[in-house]
Amino acid sequence: MSSPPSGRNHEARQAAADRQAQLTKPPGSLRVLEEVALDLAEIQGAELPVARPAAALIFAADHPVVRHGVAAYPASITAGMVVNLAVGGAAASVASKCHGIPLEVHDVGVSTPYELPPSTSSARVVRHPSAEIQAGDLRVEDAMSSELFEACYEAGRSAVLGLDRPAKVLLLGEMGIGNTTPSSAVAAALLGLPAERMVGPGTGLDEAGVALKAEVVRDALARLDGDESPFEILRRVGGRELVAIAGAADAARETGAAIIVDGFIVTAALLAAVRAQPALRQHLVFGHRSGEPGHAILLEALSARPLLDLGLRLGEGSGALAAYGLVELAVRLHGDMATFDDAGLEGGPGGGESAAE
Amino acid sequence: MSSPPSGRNHEARQAAADRQAQLTKPPGSLRVLEEVALDLAEIQGAELPVARPAAALIFAADHPVVRHGVAAYPASITAGMVVNLAVGGAAASVASKCHGIPLEVHDVGVSTPYELPPSTSSARVVRHPSAEIQAGDLRVEDAMSSELFEACYEAGRSAVLGLDRPAKVLLLGEMGIGNTTPSSAVAAALLGLPAERMVGPGTGLDEAGVALKAEVVRDALARLDGDESPFEILRRVGGRELVAIAGAADAARETGAAIIVDGFIVTAALLAAVRAQPALRQHLVFGHRSGEPGHAILLEALSARPLLDLGLRLGEGSGALAAYGLVELAVRLHGDMATFDDAGLEGGPGGGESAAE
Repeated sequence: MSSPPSGRNHEARQAAADRQAQLTKPPGSLRVLEEVALDLAEIQGAELPVARPAAALIFAADHPVVRHGVAAYPASITAGMVVNLAVGGAAASVASKCHGIPLEVHDVGVSTPYELPPSTSSARVVRHPSAEIQAGDLRVEDAMSSELFEACYEAGRSAVLGLDRPAKVLLLGEMGIGNTTPSSAVAAALLGLPAERMVGPGTGLDEAGVALKAEVVRDALARLDGDESPFEILRRVGGRELVAIAGAADAARETGAAIIVDGFIVTAALLAAVRAQPALRQHLVFGHRSGEPGHAILLEALSARPLLDLGLRLGEGSGALAAYGLVELAVRLHGDMATFDDAGLEGGPGGGESAAE
Repeated sequence: MSSPPSGRNHEARQAAADRQAQLTKPPGSLRVLEEVALDLAEIQGAELPVARPAAALIFAADHPVVRHGVAAYPASITAGMVVNLAVGGAAASVASKCHGIPLEVHDVGVSTPYELPPSTSSARVVRHPSAEIQAGDLRVEDAMSSELFEACYEAGRSAVLGLDRPAKVLLLGEMGIGNTTPSSAVAAALLGLPAERMVGPGTGLDEAGVALKAEVVRDALARLDGDESPFEILRRVGGRELVAIAGAADAARETGAAIIVDGFIVTAALLAAVRAQPALRQHLVFGHRSGEPGHAILLEALSARPLLDLGLRLGEGSGALAAYGLVELAVRLHGDMATFDDAGLEGGPGGGESAAE
């Protein structure tokens, strides 16, 4: 907890903890699921938090830096995957349908033109003004002008604030060929670590590719003065979807929504956002430990222990989507289990003879 | 894999692996979820495995050994929780409802009389003939006669074979105050380990309680000759619900169903079953790493890496129920994601330029 919660949020957490102690189970026996319920109670300021309405928002963009060969796939795939998400063929499409939560794709900078088929049953796709502004190659120049940064941040905010049904739980994801490179640069700059510590294979680089990526990130870091603010780091060596994620998180904080955090890229963006605005930390529920090596360092910097460790390295919010089922389960257990009184069982908190094996 | 799968099962796994390579994602990027899909394909002998029909079966029984003070709660709680499960107030009630899968409670030996209310909307409760036969205090005598063992094993088999909708995925759980003690005894005997290695706090014993439990387990192990078969160990130092779980697993193997394995107690029962019948191993999908210390040893003996590590120590199949959402997600991703051809994206397996970040 980076900043003291408000009185209401603190009271809600305490009321939720009191309720947990009354539920028909040995105290603490649902461990992490209890913690999730308490975290959500605090975030939502409610003794009985909810997992719905929920929404999965994927921010998509391309990166001029891919020209150096830092990605395993061509940039055109970003556009292809936007369409695939829209029509229901992508992992995030299937997972969001599985959970029955809406999926939206926010194009904040996809370079390759794409055409959506008449029926895009899986996800609404929104193209934001930021997609029409040129980004820079972060190896040699700032990734974004201030104007572009603002447009991306606003796109993220509007994605959350414009939801048909305001979400109490938000899943933030990304799609962008090459976007582990800006994420590594942002993370290294924020944490004062050398490029080598924060680069990894992404979606499939070999050893030579990772070495090249480290070189590109080193060049990007060398352009920095070293005293940039977190958002200035995002602007100079980050990427458009990372900025949009920071903007979405800002709106989530404003509306009292919980954020289920995905993998390496989303965490890098949110580390910048938390450094800029520490109160945001208490809105984050960490979903998944990514297979990307640098994620462990980011998680440690945020004192986070994710719900899942499945080795996913797909992006698209897939780690957050995989974790959503557990968040919903935690909320349902918290709200729907009987108390000792309900069940007519002896005991309860402090009774010591009151629960089941 | 303890025994070679049949040709059909092997072919199904290979076909599923070929399909995974065609899905619109970087190869291997869904890691553990891909492995689950392949395991289920092999178990079910189908390129496109299913997660439904599913059923959660909880086997409940009491244990004369609790007279020595090895449990944190009185034996009457077992009966109370059977009723709580039936009416929908228990953790397993809420979790099974959350997933939309039927829950059944199989009473194979609950000692305290209980009365079910007219409406038991959450779970069907079945009392088996084994519940009418006296069990022994495993510290000083065999836990079961051969007749009782057979009755429990048959109860487990009939629970699976008698399901209204034959399950393709089975979640096995247990409820029984004191049942970590027989589980520790069975595990120690099967693995040739001293009692101290396999005892833990269960649902809340203090240090003195754990030391007492170790003494009880030591006495039980001293009664063994050391050359017992796995099932003979279950009969002499186990418990009724453990035997029923072994019987249920036998029926699952027969019907080609996958079993999502819960925590310490279920794993101890299934280790005996796998030792008796190695082909059973390939039917097991491990759901959760329990907070009970001995579980890690059992998992290692079965070369298992569970999907979840949430510190649960509740029983009732709660670990398997928590993992079910991921199993369903894995199956849906496998079956419903687009292939590269479907999505009109370049590449595919070996293409190397064909997936998304």
